[in-house]
Amino acid sequence: MPINHDTAGRRARLRTELRTADDPVSFLVVSDLVNVRYLTGFTGSNAAVLIDVDDPAGDRIATDGRYLTQVAEQVPDVEPIIERAAARALVDHARATGAGRVGFEADTETVAGHRALSAALGDSGIELVSTTGLVQNLRAVKEPGEIELLRAACAIGDAALAQIIAGGVLRAGTTEREVARALEWEMYRLGADGIAFETIVAAGAHSAIPHHRPTHTALADGDLVKIDFGSVVGGYHSDMTRTFVLRRAASWQRDLYELVATAQAAGRAALTPGADLRAVDAAARDVIDHAGHGEHYVHGLGHGVGLQIHEAPGIGKLAAGTLPCGAAVTVEPGVYLPGWGGVRIEDTLVVTDGDPDLLTATDKTFTVI
Amino acid sequence: MPINHDTAGRRARLRTELRTADDPVSFLVVSDLVNVRYLTGFTGSNAAVLIDVDDPAGDRIATDGRYLTQVAEQVPDVEPIIERAAARALVDHARATGAGRVGFEADTETVAGHRALSAALGDSGIELVSTTGLVQNLRAVKEPGEIELLRAACAIGDAALAQIIAGGVLRAGTTEREVARALEWEMYRLGADGIAFETIVAAGAHSAIPHHRPTHTALADGDLVKIDFGSVVGGYHSDMTRTFVLRRAASWQRDLYELVATAQAAGRAALTPGADLRAVDAAARDVIDHAGHGEHYVHGLGHGVGLQIHEAPGIGKLAAGTLPCGAAVTVEPGVYLPGWGGVRIEDTLVVTDGDPDLLTATDKTFTVI
Repeated sequence: MPINHDTAGRRARLRTELRTADDPVSFLVVSDLVNVRYLTGFTGSNAAVLIDVDDPAGDRIATDGRYLTQVAEQVPDVEPIIERAAARALVDHARATGAGRVGFEADTETVAGHRALSAALGDSGIELVSTTGLVQNLRAVKEPGEIELLRAACAIGDAALAQIIAGGVLRAGTTEREVARALEWEMYRLGADGIAFETIVAAGAHSAIPHHRPTHTALADGDLVKIDFGSVVGGYHSDMTRTFVLRRAASWQRDLYELVATAQAAGRAALTPGADLRAVDAAARDVIDHAGHGEHYVHGLGHGVGLQIHEAPGIGKLAAGTLPCGAAVTVEPGVYLPGWGGVRIEDTLVVTDGDPDLLTATDKTFTVI
Repeated sequence: MPINHDTAGRRARLRTELRTADDPVSFLVVSDLVNVRYLTGFTGSNAAVLIDVDDPAGDRIATDGRYLTQVAEQVPDVEPIIERAAARALVDHARATGAGRVGFEADTETVAGHRALSAALGDSGIELVSTTGLVQNLRAVKEPGEIELLRAACAIGDAALAQIIAGGVLRAGTTEREVARALEWEMYRLGADGIAFETIVAAGAHSAIPHHRPTHTALADGDLVKIDFGSVVGGYHSDMTRTFVLRRAASWQRDLYELVATAQAAGRAALTPGADLRAVDAAARDVIDHAGHGEHYVHGLGHGVGLQIHEAPGIGKLAAGTLPCGAAVTVEPGVYLPGWGGVRIEDTLVVTDGDPDLLTATDKTFTVI
């Protein structure tokens, strides 16, 4: 699925943001590699981009000699500078143009990296200006092409899970690791470019550990089995959690599942453009709190997903801001009873003017396998 | 292979470093997650550690509620603080003890993170002091238990590559992606906990791209096929590159291979305790320069490898410092002829008082498959 992302359009939107900023700059140095990819399409492991606020032709991309060929192919429309110290080369370039104030990404640039940039500027009179979240906020609103890639990645997750269930992988005796590997293998077979994150397969008491790493423990009849996984397609990540019971369900497992399912539905229903992020979190959390399990729900409701598995906006108790139309987010409440087991149910959805667009289609009714 | 890392001993060594620092502090906040793992064994996705320079009992680990059970299991010997803003909670704790100067990791802490810590301190009179590379330098020298894990990870790489060659995977018609997936599958089958990095399989002209991502392109007879890959065992990464020719080799391919092999042997021979890192790089680079291919060797000679695939020490033209005894490093020169093809040969080795300990055992003689 080759998608031609309009990276020049993204740089233009960033320029517009920079022009209307409270604290104006003449250039922005983008050194976060995911932001570099978003703005240019470049996927190498060392690069930075210079955005010229006044003139698109003044934009530059810096990377090292390993990527000479790749940068020319992936970024034909931005002039490259080949230099290992990429951000520094761009600041030097900005200085040579007589720039006065140069923005940098304070939320990803390290203190030591910032110090090196400052040192490079010396007494040139250029001032480094902190910015936060500029590109991340652009990334939060997905373009149609990005949504298609997310949809493809989620569809691979759905199909892979269906395939391993049909193949009888989820049965007593299979280890957590074997389930994880089978799922990953299916996702690759179905065309995934990669695995979105370390696949979580947690059986029995392990399901009470929110971020359990799969072990050689075998699944057993009566276990809750929590599976949290995703694929990558064209750089975009899918994210889904489903929880099943093997063979015979206890009533507490069914009750726990129904509680989480109700909370998850409430969270999904709260996904409207402009909604306060804390209110979205509260919509699901209140359900669990009222059932007396608030202390067993130890994380936020969800997060943005795209070129990174966790990106803006975060949806949690301490979140700030509102949900933009076009955001792709997860909704994933969970209740975890230490020593007993836990249930998490997670979808990836896109916020629209109507009902949210549900990208993860696997059934969510209580299922005994 | 359960290894009991002496994390208390690591914290003690760090304390010793801090006591003899030029710029003394009473506490160090360690917020880099790999460093946190090294110092405590904790593997969660949000944590920070406070090192009390005067008293081991004053050490603390902070993480959020998702990891309540995990932190107790993995870090029984450090008192936990359960708080989502982990580094900030530790600075608050240090302040409450009346600390004067608190160190932080300037090479991994972001500018925005540092600002938040400073704001939390307010007018408490505490000063945040930059440190760089303290834990990274400890990590550069491997303990016997760490070397065993690296050896196990490298052995899995060797066996997986032998297996796919024996199985006939490296033949005309197989795609780069299929080779990558087959290799990864074998590593998992052989007991790997994970894949060390995105497997590189680059055939024909693609082999001239140092960091090529595998595509649906099929291998063809006469291709150079460059394979750079590794596994993870107990958190430790292996890293090896081998380059083959399919069916029939041209003389330029053989010449290129022998040049890189000679350079690689020179690099390995230069791995002695106390060697200047730039001199190690030069030992291999000079061979390639003298053959007139300096401009086609576009990266450094190697890097440390351990809990991260790239860690200290870096071995390159711009490196500073010397090679410590016990360092685990790669030696991986390459020559890349755009449009034609490239050869890279890479081993992982441990620096010892005698010959380096070669962890990657796959044969390096020119091989036509």
